[in-house]
Amino acid sequence: MVQYQPDIDRAFTALADVTRRDVLERLSAGSLTITELAAPYGMSLTGMKKHISVLEDAHLVTTQKVGRTRVCQLVPYAFEGISVWLARLDRFAQVVERTKGQQ
Amino acid sequence: MVQYQPDIDRAFTALADVTRRDVLERLSAGSLTITELAAPYGMSLTGMKKHISVLEDAHLVTTQKVGRTRVCQLVPYAFEGISVWLARLDRFAQVVERTKGQQ
Repeated sequence: MVQYQPDIDRAFTALADVTRRDVLERLSAGSLTITELAAPYGMSLTGMKKHISVLEDAHLVTTQKVGRTRVCQLVPYAFEGISVWLARLDRFAQVVERTKGQQ
Repeated sequence: MVQYQPDIDRAFTALADVTRRDVLERLSAGSLTITELAAPYGMSLTGMKKHISVLEDAHLVTTQKVGRTRVCQLVPYAFEGISVWLARLDRFAQVVERTKGQQ
């Protein structure tokens, strides 16, 4: 019955962490390095690299090595898959709700 | 820096589990009892109650005791908050992407 959707699973797991959501918000305004991303939280680079790795696995963020730094950016249309999934559920639920009202 | 949004946090945590997503899909087609929800997974009622409790805490599902059974239903517009948040991020990221293209 359960259809495992690895991409959606990874995306929701990545999004369930408040620091990672904040990183995504900051990256939505433009690319940032790991060092820039870590700074405001007083977090180690290793800690931030782990968060970025989770976001990369979920295909929400890509990184690129530029000289000695690693630049992170949000994947365009990163949330399209899960947005479509959520919208479909909301739509179904509204149809059920309306049908109930008509009974 | 990190703005903790407890409702969004709970919603994403609830959605990070494949069984809970499947339960939401099934509830989007109409109300079901805990027993009906548990059956296809060969899961104990206690196990399903735990999943439903996580979904209730996230304000995605409500339950109602009807006689000796507990009926679960999807909250209408349950995903509106996180859908708006995701759409905003996608929109920002697309503006950044377009601006890059123009440089």
